[in-house]
Amino acid sequence: MLTIAIDAMGGDFGPAPIVEGTLHALRERDFKALLVGDVTLLRSLTPHEYLDRISFVEASDVLDMHEAATNALKRKETSIYKAVDLVKDKVADAVVSMGHSGATMSLATLRIGRLKGVLRPAIATIMPTAVPGRLSLVLDVGANVDCKAEHLAQFAVMGEAYAKDILKIAKPKVGLLSNGEEESKGNEITKEAFLTLKKCESFVGNVEGNNIFDGSVDVIVCDGFVGNILLKASEGVADSITKIIKQNVRRSPLAIAGAVLMRKVFRVLKKQVDYAEYGGAPLIGINGCAIIGHGKSNSKAVKNAIFQAINFSSSNINADIEQKIALLEQ
Amino acid sequence: MLTIAIDAMGGDFGPAPIVEGTLHALRERDFKALLVGDVTLLRSLTPHEYLDRISFVEASDVLDMHEAATNALKRKETSIYKAVDLVKDKVADAVVSMGHSGATMSLATLRIGRLKGVLRPAIATIMPTAVPGRLSLVLDVGANVDCKAEHLAQFAVMGEAYAKDILKIAKPKVGLLSNGEEESKGNEITKEAFLTLKKCESFVGNVEGNNIFDGSVDVIVCDGFVGNILLKASEGVADSITKIIKQNVRRSPLAIAGAVLMRKVFRVLKKQVDYAEYGGAPLIGINGCAIIGHGKSNSKAVKNAIFQAINFSSSNINADIEQKIALLEQ
Repeated sequence: MLTIAIDAMGGDFGPAPIVEGTLHALRERDFKALLVGDVTLLRSLTPHEYLDRISFVEASDVLDMHEAATNALKRKETSIYKAVDLVKDKVADAVVSMGHSGATMSLATLRIGRLKGVLRPAIATIMPTAVPGRLSLVLDVGANVDCKAEHLAQFAVMGEAYAKDILKIAKPKVGLLSNGEEESKGNEITKEAFLTLKKCESFVGNVEGNNIFDGSVDVIVCDGFVGNILLKASEGVADSITKIIKQNVRRSPLAIAGAVLMRKVFRVLKKQVDYAEYGGAPLIGINGCAIIGHGKSNSKAVKNAIFQAINFSSSNINADIEQKIALLEQ
Repeated sequence: MLTIAIDAMGGDFGPAPIVEGTLHALRERDFKALLVGDVTLLRSLTPHEYLDRISFVEASDVLDMHEAATNALKRKETSIYKAVDLVKDKVADAVVSMGHSGATMSLATLRIGRLKGVLRPAIATIMPTAVPGRLSLVLDVGANVDCKAEHLAQFAVMGEAYAKDILKIAKPKVGLLSNGEEESKGNEITKEAFLTLKKCESFVGNVEGNNIFDGSVDVIVCDGFVGNILLKASEGVADSITKIIKQNVRRSPLAIAGAVLMRKVFRVLKKQVDYAEYGGAPLIGINGCAIIGHGKSNSKAVKNAIFQAINFSSSNINADIEQKIALLEQ
């Protein structure tokens, strides 16, 4: 049975939604949860009947969301430090945190270590597309701001492994995010990465921003600077459209009636674009499993992040990545 | 009276919407149009009563959208080459093209020349925000793929001038697009640009992808690689949301009725996010005016692109930019 370490103190809303999400997850899947944080508080939030599948690990300190990620390594009593070390010490198979993503990233990379051959782990995020049931994976979305071509090429390989092993896409299509589809497009670094990736069977060439959402490609590769910007810009567009619709509906009783009739459609839309459905972003390339959740995660998002950790840890992805990276180097 | 040269052969739909858009513009504003292209064809599309305000300039060649931009300089008989040269030769005040944007960019930069002190002209695009009546300006969105810090700093200054002189924002707020708001965030190049921009009064620091659409900032600075990706990703999100809504509305008679009642809301939304309302993207930093329209421009977009050219050419923006760039260098 898998053991999942959960940083129960990270996240914007404190431990309540994290504990609740863990209980939801335990109801649906078989695993052992290690809740890391203020044990007295966490125990008080946990109903008696779950105590055989939840253990508690004391951590007296919490890393604030606004602290520098570099502090994380020095603060050895924080819940995130202790949760990561449970994976390092092979007590847990995976760590899940809704806390400081930069800190989770550095701690997981430095304490757990990288897979053989991996230069830099990457944060991957699952994006909804307009095609029902089809998702796309974008990486890196923030771990690596300044990248070299060889990093991008490795992200492609790691994304392909995730798409195959976790998203269960038999032949994933991998694209390099660029400013045009032609091979001649790109900046200096993506052009160089293109040349390396050409020899990979799964590589479909350059793709553009809109291809993330049209279902034409499964894995989209970019550096963490571009990935972070496009993730937030995409959320911004969706939020703005929602706001504009709401502002205008409020002005007209007819439109309000219309919105009521369309309620189910909006619910489907919301479900399809809701990050909570996807749970969290895996840090790919470490010698273990770390899932980085959104700070604003509700209990459903926490549950889905735990499911991601379970799916990741029970798959063969890490061995696959080491093998593919070795092939890329040849 | 201003004279606007219009590449009448560029664009995905041939000369018809371009001539029609020109006629619409002539009905609303006072200017002289120079239509460049196949004169016999263009004349046949022009009603008699407009002939006193439209002149025709023969161009026997058209640059295809799929050709390399580098071909543009050699092909001296193309409509875009001739239209740009009308500005170079001071026959026209501005050039408008819906054709090959890379070609328009290179031709305008090399034939018309750059403003004093400007290292690289940038393509700026106007974006809708969730705040009614408020727009934001993003630059560069494609002219310069690999940028140095000094280029980004100049884009900030040029964007500020556009916001003041054309968008009539008295005190524009200028932000540097980054992967976080803190000064410590950014890639090597944006961090260096941040240091230069700090001394500008209008500079509000780093901004994130979502700030493009929330009305919190007027000018957003990035390199052309990031700008192009985020522009297309944003269009992709909006398109996907529309598709998901349509797919689901079709499945339910109730939802169809709801959509009918909400028609006006969707119309407002469409108008607010429709590129045709904004017309085209100015190439800022050249010693003249070039407006680059969308290849898919309908006559309304063409009309608005011409209006942009008129507003730009009748403003003091170019003198302003030269002055601001000189101050930045100090």
